[in-house]
Amino acid sequence: MTQNVDRETVVSRLLGTDDILILCHKNPDGDTIGSSAALCKALQHLGKTAAVLCSDPIPAMYDYMQITVYDGSFTPAFVVAVDVAGIQLFGDHNNIQDYAEHVDLCIDHHGSNSGYAYETLVDSAAWAPRGPPPAELLTELIPQMGVELTPEIAACLYTGVATDTGCFRFTNTTANTHLAAAKLIEAGADVEKLNERLFECRSHARIQAEKMALESLEFYYEDRCALICLTWDQIQAAGVAGAELEDLTSIPRSIEGVEVGLTLRQQKDGSYKISVRTGHDTNACNIARRLGGGGHPRAAGCEISGNLDNAKHAILEEVKKELDRAEAEKNSLEQ
Amino acid sequence: MTQNVDRETVVSRLLGTDDILILCHKNPDGDTIGSSAALCKALQHLGKTAAVLCSDPIPAMYDYMQITVYDGSFTPAFVVAVDVAGIQLFGDHNNIQDYAEHVDLCIDHHGSNSGYAYETLVDSAAWAPRGPPPAELLTELIPQMGVELTPEIAACLYTGVATDTGCFRFTNTTANTHLAAAKLIEAGADVEKLNERLFECRSHARIQAEKMALESLEFYYEDRCALICLTWDQIQAAGVAGAELEDLTSIPRSIEGVEVGLTLRQQKDGSYKISVRTGHDTNACNIARRLGGGGHPRAAGCEISGNLDNAKHAILEEVKKELDRAEAEKNSLEQ
Repeated sequence: MTQNVDRETVVSRLLGTDDILILCHKNPDGDTIGSSAALCKALQHLGKTAAVLCSDPIPAMYDYMQITVYDGSFTPAFVVAVDVAGIQLFGDHNNIQDYAEHVDLCIDHHGSNSGYAYETLVDSAAWAPRGPPPAELLTELIPQMGVELTPEIAACLYTGVATDTGCFRFTNTTANTHLAAAKLIEAGADVEKLNERLFECRSHARIQAEKMALESLEFYYEDRCALICLTWDQIQAAGVAGAELEDLTSIPRSIEGVEVGLTLRQQKDGSYKISVRTGHDTNACNIARRLGGGGHPRAAGCEISGNLDNAKHAILEEVKKELDRAEAEKNSLEQ
Repeated sequence: MTQNVDRETVVSRLLGTDDILILCHKNPDGDTIGSSAALCKALQHLGKTAAVLCSDPIPAMYDYMQITVYDGSFTPAFVVAVDVAGIQLFGDHNNIQDYAEHVDLCIDHHGSNSGYAYETLVDSAAWAPRGPPPAELLTELIPQMGVELTPEIAACLYTGVATDTGCFRFTNTTANTHLAAAKLIEAGADVEKLNERLFECRSHARIQAEKMALESLEFYYEDRCALICLTWDQIQAAGVAGAELEDLTSIPRSIEGVEVGLTLRQQKDGSYKISVRTGHDTNACNIARRLGGGGHPRAAGCEISGNLDNAKHAILEEVKKELDRAEAEKNSLEQ
């Protein structure tokens, strides 16, 4: 059982220790990397030994952070995890599981955090799948540790804040998120360059995958449902993977008037992984759950074996039921 | 010759008058509409008569602002223009030119403002084609007028700030922009709904046009130049127009490694309108100017008559010259 701690405790734990190992989650994104890099630099500014460990390679687009990657040159005396909700999210490479079992402190923003660490600070929100970005919290914690926000630290934290909020668009963006961004710009984060790198640069693979996705676009139920589909061969040919492939799932729901957006991605074994995104009227989890999947009310997923026609037929039938249910609910409220 | 005035003068002019007509620019965007609507509501809160006039219809996506559109029911005693850099930008419909010649006060952020109004407040920036959004300025001015930022006014101002900065990505985003956003969220702007409406909703026409653009994508000069092309027939078939068509021009430059992005759009007369977008190494204006066009260092344009092959050939030749020039400059700096 973990002990939930407050910010002051986190600051005092970090100030009172040395030889600190910081763990990211697997398939690392801007938030886990930016937060970890900022914390590592802050601890180094205090004269401490610190390094970052991740199961997967840090994507090259984040090279500008110049992260101290753990190379085994010191024996960790204190292990901190940043933005990792459960042990399975650490991954399996780089011997990260040796440390994942003994995490001293976890700083996270997922309400679903499993409490695997000895002490945990979770800044979650009741109204969203996750709370404010950990980088937003660290924008306040690092000065509390007595470390000035240098331009380098500010660039790492801005990366975390901006990527985790989809550049201030997602539901976990609050007034405080913008106050953190203002502070980071004042501290010297070069937002012009960072925004260009983080948000205005799509790989050739991503462009290729978007093209194929748009070519596969179909509409159902008076255009209230939109569906895109990528076969295993197409995904391999485009060479798109990870977060870039994941991002495609937002396309169908982003179309005017679409309430349910579906993305079908064929797996290596021929089965289809289906991502369901819904608007305010319908529940994605209702749809996915009836096919053995699960998720959040607005983002859920499931897997269906069999050929494409079968997969489409099965998921579209559940979408229809959910659209009908929402329609009936709306009508009963209006009466 | 216009008189440049400060914020205090703007506040006192607005407080000292009544029957106020607020003018937007043609092809209205979120900034000119959001700023005008917020100013109109603020003046109405003070018990004044005020209304907004635009040459073109206000796009339906902005309906939530519930703008008081000028219907001739009062004779304007004072005319304010918001976000309009020159008289030609008012447009020609709705008799707007009757008022455009006698603008009492202009609130703008373009360094290129022609000074057509009796008094002008330009909040420009030396380092960008335009300064902070007028809505950011109004976030400070409206409280100075003694009007509280209501949730309705905050929604209009947030629309202006967020659209003009490309949701806090463009170069005119500063720490102060984020402070304004924080203030507007605290004042009750429903950013979750606003962001979804402003940034996560693409029309069927837009999706169709994106698909055609990606299908036309070509690369040149070791992928340092990317080109997309839409014929007149394709544009008509997709039904895409205005800002949505304009947005497509950012696609080619957004691809990894691309320094020069070109968008060729065929006009009704068969000629090609070419948009040139460049990275940090090359100058878009150099390229466009040699073909009779012009613009800014990173965004410029020109028109070429003749068929597609001719247009491509002509623009690609100029792109090559500019890439070579940039390469030579880089080499000479390195020596």
